Amino acid sequence: MGPPDDTPDTDAEAESTSDRGDDTSYHRQLGIGEAAFDGLQPHFQQRNYEGLEYRHVPDYRRGVERGTVLIDGEMVRGFPKVPGTLVLETGIPTQFDEHERIAVEEKLNGYNVRVARIDGKQLAFSRSGMVCPFTTRVLTRLVDLDDLFEEHPNTLVCGEVIGPENPYTAHDYPGVDSIAFRAFDWRDRESGEPLPVQERRERYEALGVPQTPLFEVVNVGSAAASVQEIIRELDAEDREGVILKSLDGNTLLKYTTSSSTNSDLAYAFSLPFDYGQAFMFRRLLREGFQTVEWGEDDEVARERAHEVGESILCSMREAIQTVEDGDALGERHTVRASDKTIDVLFEHLRGQGLTIDIEDDSHEDGDRVVTFCKRTPSSNDTIRNYLDGHVVRE
Amino acid sequence: MGPPDDTPDTDAEAESTSDRGDDTSYHRQLGIGEAAFDGLQPHFQQRNYEGLEYRHVPDYRRGVERGTVLIDGEMVRGFPKVPGTLVLETGIPTQFDEHERIAVEEKLNGYNVRVARIDGKQLAFSRSGMVCPFTTRVLTRLVDLDDLFEEHPNTLVCGEVIGPENPYTAHDYPGVDSIAFRAFDWRDRESGEPLPVQERRERYEALGVPQTPLFEVVNVGSAAASVQEIIRELDAEDREGVILKSLDGNTLLKYTTSSSTNSDLAYAFSLPFDYGQAFMFRRLLREGFQTVEWGEDDEVARERAHEVGESILCSMREAIQTVEDGDALGERHTVRASDKTIDVLFEHLRGQGLTIDIEDDSHEDGDRVVTFCKRTPSSNDTIRNYLDGHVVRE
Repeated sequence: MGPPDDTPDTDAEAESTSDRGDDTSYHRQLGIGEAAFDGLQPHFQQRNYEGLEYRHVPDYRRGVERGTVLIDGEMVRGFPKVPGTLVLETGIPTQFDEHERIAVEEKLNGYNVRVARIDGKQLAFSRSGMVCPFTTRVLTRLVDLDDLFEEHPNTLVCGEVIGPENPYTAHDYPGVDSIAFRAFDWRDRESGEPLPVQERRERYEALGVPQTPLFEVVNVGSAAASVQEIIRELDAEDREGVILKSLDGNTLLKYTTSSSTNSDLAYAFSLPFDYGQAFMFRRLLREGFQTVEWGEDDEVARERAHEVGESILCSMREAIQTVEDGDALGERHTVRASDKTIDVLFEHLRGQGLTIDIEDDSHEDGDRVVTFCKRTPSSNDTIRNYLDGHVVRE
Repeated sequence: MGPPDDTPDTDAEAESTSDRGDDTSYHRQLGIGEAAFDGLQPHFQQRNYEGLEYRHVPDYRRGVERGTVLIDGEMVRGFPKVPGTLVLETGIPTQFDEHERIAVEEKLNGYNVRVARIDGKQLAFSRSGMVCPFTTRVLTRLVDLDDLFEEHPNTLVCGEVIGPENPYTAHDYPGVDSIAFRAFDWRDRESGEPLPVQERRERYEALGVPQTPLFEVVNVGSAAASVQEIIRELDAEDREGVILKSLDGNTLLKYTTSSSTNSDLAYAFSLPFDYGQAFMFRRLLREGFQTVEWGEDDEVARERAHEVGESILCSMREAIQTVEDGDALGERHTVRASDKTIDVLFEHLRGQGLTIDIEDDSHEDGDRVVTFCKRTPSSNDTIRNYLDGHVVRE
């Protein structure tokens, strides 16, 4: 299990920049005025990927998506924030009030990447807009995008990297032994405009690019009932949830399963001082509204409550016991790749200020397989302090 | 059940003040320099109680306790924040490292008042330093402090108002049918200095003032085990917890029962948008550390987890269902007092910007008995919005 995917990237080593490069064209590409672009400057962070300087916007800002990148005179649009609803019955018609039909696709539990071809090279960008050297290097193992970029060079291939051997968000999926890519969106790299759902699915199909499952295309008015049915099935298989999309691809809405919510809660409370309280609270709300919308009786609601309680308390208990026993808390991951790719991954993570402990390191079939732990100093130190009798002045 | 007692007072109608009155003496009374006192000025709020102007510090500030009052040339010290520990075994020796023995007294679940005699009148002050007209008026029913103030005019009588007919924090205690007062501290009104525990208890005893129970006086080194035993008994009776005190009365430490923590959680999640997420999180931490310190096995820990889950989810579910049914959420209280006292209570609450709905209003034995509901607009409106399909952009 890995951290939920709205974990912010650590940006310890990044610096904001005053480099102006070819900004006159950037502000036009972004579709904002020069003054607005100037206002954005302090929010850019400058980085370097194998000698290539680039800037990105790691946080949400007015007028530009988080994760937007300016690189080599080109722009890579950030992936838009996906809104959610706590109530399907009313949330779906509210969000899709200008649409008749919507597509229901699976929301996979992995990490979001955008792949673009810049100066002939395919680069994989993280949600916040960093080039991820690990994903960039393993990409060719996961999916062949050469034909796609030959035919459509300005494409932004948006997808999820899933599977258990995953340095960020590991989750098991049937048929995925190590790591895999699933495309869920096809956008224009500069404008961020998506392809309509059907066209996107056909193109990826024709190009042999694996995609997230499409469950149905359904009328907005009757979607709540069938989405609820899908969510129940996904829940039973410990899968994350769905993304609803207008057929033009422009309007999105997410909804998650109880098992995903509980898994997030358990993860958050296993590192209670490294996750935000708002993160925890939002997930508790999801459970509250879901039990009401689903009309659960007292007994079923009580069972749901017990699961929530266990997600919170049992994982917190285990974390406290771990620290009490003198062991270190952290986020444990296993990755499988070439020696060089593993090296650049650790360099990348350490470059973000993370402390990485290698717990297992071996070779299998020419690959290096490493289990490592990202230290989480806040939870370790704060739990240690409380165990030592630190007095709480609330 | 009423709200937990660290609910902040509502101060909607208060204004900060630039009135300087007899400030030259106040800064000396406070034991701070003139410059420090000037720095405090913007944090004073000015109020009026029956024609008497006064100022108070409603929030925690450096150098002066929250709830400190300047009134009629006199000063009323705020009651100090009581620190807590998450782990008895280490927290007790840490907090009481300069002491050999400590007193273990009950922490009652009601609301904190300080009573002082100002210009011949006994006034009851809330934690934040407002004169509470209700408590001030019912005080003579609860306790006779005339002899005390005759003998010791500069006393600050600190205690808890408990019982089910309570406009702030209602909780049932055996033998308390309506409302009662229990003294837990005796301080100097100006300096805030407390009496030693034994002397305080003897004085209150001699003066016939009811007090919080004293369980034991115990060596610091062996306190954790006996406090744990006391906590288990209090927990079984749904009581709140203990305050540990150095025998000189100066050093305090609180620790609460699981039943109190669950009750707070249930209350907070019954009004999920009116309580802070930090309030909820701190209580979850208490449960996590308690289960570890008490060495609970998996089965017992799981039962504790189920209770926590029910406190959170079942109360949130009920709140959402209440709003779904078109009913209003709020904090419901019953009070019993004279017509006039009830009138001033509602005037006081409404003066703080609260909306009060009277749900039941009758007379019994010459008293007026009123059940009312303080509206909680945030939880009502936010739950309503989500039920209506409001889309969440996290």
